[in-house]
Amino acid sequence: MAARTEARKLQAMPSETRTKILHAIADALLERQDYLLEQNRLDVEQAEKDGINLVLRKRLKLTPEKLSTLASGLKQIAEKPDPLGVVKAKRELAKNLELTQITVPIGVLMIIFESRPDSMPQISALALASGNGLLLKGGKEAVHSNAALHQVIGDAIEVASDGEIKRDIIALVTSRGQVADMLSLDDVIDLVIPRGSNALVSYIKANTRIPVLGHADGVCHVYVDKSATDADAAIKIVVDAKTDYPSACNAMETLLLHKDTILLPGGIALSVLMALRAAGVKCLGGPTAMKMGLCDVPAEALKYEYGDLTCMVEVVDSIDDAIDWIHRYGSGHTECIICSEDSEAGEDFLRRVDAACVFKNASTRFSDGFRFGLGAEVGISTSRIHARGPVGVEGLLTTKWQLRSKDGDINCVGEFAGDNPKKMYTHKDLM
Amino acid sequence: MAARTEARKLQAMPSETRTKILHAIADALLERQDYLLEQNRLDVEQAEKDGINLVLRKRLKLTPEKLSTLASGLKQIAEKPDPLGVVKAKRELAKNLELTQITVPIGVLMIIFESRPDSMPQISALALASGNGLLLKGGKEAVHSNAALHQVIGDAIEVASDGEIKRDIIALVTSRGQVADMLSLDDVIDLVIPRGSNALVSYIKANTRIPVLGHADGVCHVYVDKSATDADAAIKIVVDAKTDYPSACNAMETLLLHKDTILLPGGIALSVLMALRAAGVKCLGGPTAMKMGLCDVPAEALKYEYGDLTCMVEVVDSIDDAIDWIHRYGSGHTECIICSEDSEAGEDFLRRVDAACVFKNASTRFSDGFRFGLGAEVGISTSRIHARGPVGVEGLLTTKWQLRSKDGDINCVGEFAGDNPKKMYTHKDLM
Repeated sequence: MAARTEARKLQAMPSETRTKILHAIADALLERQDYLLEQNRLDVEQAEKDGINLVLRKRLKLTPEKLSTLASGLKQIAEKPDPLGVVKAKRELAKNLELTQITVPIGVLMIIFESRPDSMPQISALALASGNGLLLKGGKEAVHSNAALHQVIGDAIEVASDGEIKRDIIALVTSRGQVADMLSLDDVIDLVIPRGSNALVSYIKANTRIPVLGHADGVCHVYVDKSATDADAAIKIVVDAKTDYPSACNAMETLLLHKDTILLPGGIALSVLMALRAAGVKCLGGPTAMKMGLCDVPAEALKYEYGDLTCMVEVVDSIDDAIDWIHRYGSGHTECIICSEDSEAGEDFLRRVDAACVFKNASTRFSDGFRFGLGAEVGISTSRIHARGPVGVEGLLTTKWQLRSKDGDINCVGEFAGDNPKKMYTHKDLM
Repeated sequence: MAARTEARKLQAMPSETRTKILHAIADALLERQDYLLEQNRLDVEQAEKDGINLVLRKRLKLTPEKLSTLASGLKQIAEKPDPLGVVKAKRELAKNLELTQITVPIGVLMIIFESRPDSMPQISALALASGNGLLLKGGKEAVHSNAALHQVIGDAIEVASDGEIKRDIIALVTSRGQVADMLSLDDVIDLVIPRGSNALVSYIKANTRIPVLGHADGVCHVYVDKSATDADAAIKIVVDAKTDYPSACNAMETLLLHKDTILLPGGIALSVLMALRAAGVKCLGGPTAMKMGLCDVPAEALKYEYGDLTCMVEVVDSIDDAIDWIHRYGSGHTECIICSEDSEAGEDFLRRVDAACVFKNASTRFSDGFRFGLGAEVGISTSRIHARGPVGVEGLLTTKWQLRSKDGDINCVGEFAGDNPKKMYTHKDLM
């Protein structure tokens, strides 16, 4: 398959080639801006005709400012240290026999993204920087924009590599049917990264044997421990976690309150609840919360991603109960404890909660590649294999083992066997 | 599910508990040796009645020596540095906001192993050392031995943990039907590791959505470059790679000869071929090798794992052709080049060949967890996701991200947003 062949060529070339390609793409986004904006206008006009709402249309629309931000983002990726060939382990197995584990690209990625056309150059840059081939599927609303971007990126790749790397290293998939076909190609595609709705991710997970990097849902909890006594602090975190961007996967969906924060004098729970409601959040009650009279409307499900200004509120007897609840009804995405700085509860929670991200006195909204300092983000993984949590370029790498006989020697395992072996393993770590 | 609950308890306990459990298991293997040998005798007698061959019966049979080797192996695993809680990244995101990425167990593993009952304590030890829960399925020939070992291990776990960890952390699955059922439990089992025949691995890969660590086939190549002039060295490597253990996945299946090693004076190829045949290896010819008259019998398939004293021989025009051949007909397991120490071909091959293991002047048989110095091995992976090549305890780990507000501070993403933010990201690496 072309994408794999071209990617293998790219990873074998010096890192300067990849840097040069990324700069060329960044420059081309600016130089061919008129063409890109003109093609994008076709999509925006169609979206208006189709009555697509203003928020989506804004996401769809390219502007000179967006292109310029994109170009400087690409130049940042280009200037990062080469992610390939990084030595992860180095070991002398025996005299004149040296083992090295180095980072290499995964191979061919399939990335499915939504209506924002600016995702495309960014994803392409991450894949190229890490030497991967790419199959891209964009939203149908952005069909002209994506085709134009694909053209511009392909031209830049071919020119910057002096024709060594063909544009086929990035293939653009346009129809839904093609996606379905490709999900069966587990010998051609090594990893699928769906960036989209829960329904999309669930559909893909259910319909492919190719490993999927991502998360189907984000049912994140904030637990207010009995040691939490600062109502203002708790309110800030809870309101931020729920209202900063309610449709994000890292927004709070369930608020767990230790019973002492309600029943004991000075308990902060009622202030937190009132602040949430005042911020426009509908608070549905879990079974105990309803029994205690904290809420008016019962929650219908104990594990649910609302994705809007709604959350569930429930009361627990202890931190153990909170952790059990999270393990039972959470999605392993991001879980937060609000506690006093010195209480043991904080470290206990950080250690025991089994999730990709576990936070102490910080909003669940920090669960994000940029905020984590990973540079660009390819997704957030709730799987336990390969990569977990926000994933940057590291998630697009695997390793290979190189073994070298040195100093003109050769090595056979037979020489190390038997009662009186000619050679002995030394297994000395060299880093 | 019990295995997950118990594993979560175990990973939250101090590492001393895990060490104590491993020592207790090692001691119990010796203390309860009579019981284990007696139960094992039932299996061996049954195997004799069933006419199972001597090699398999030898593998099946436990002896005081085997138990004692096992016990000391377990004690070595116990004394290794704790694999959990290792800090992989540490970053100040902002003043008083610190991110840490630490190693944690994957969760619940399902390991399917063959007739050797001594695999069971070893696999159990690796899982327990890394805080994982385990579902084990052993071969039906070893049913009494495995049940007895499971009993002894379970007793040791409960006693050594003062009853805190239940024996359910390791479940023994006995029937084939149970395996089929379990392969559908992708919410309960995080990783399947089949250690067995290609047919078993292929069956499992085709019948589950759970990630599988392992390899279906090992079609390993040795390529003799034109720069190779030392016939003795080449013969040693090729004969070792093919004959040291022909049924192993890392044995050579295809020998690729650069045409100059045949046609030019001083070429070493014919000596290599003769040595292979003299060592009892049947050499089937690839298309070009047949045309050139190197072999008598043509190979029927260009990608085939013989697993016995048979291999295919083919001629290539260049190192580029050799690499293309390997990419087309290899399985991404282990590939070797024989070349002169200083030729560029060696490094070129090591860099460009896309496989889990790539060797220069060393037998493919080195591809093995013990020989790589990984300690015990859970398998060899040809997948590009999670772990690649020989996999030790590292392959049983994932990571989680812990984020801590410090010094009594709290953090919300809203504080970092807007034109005049109250707080700024610092993204300072702390290691």
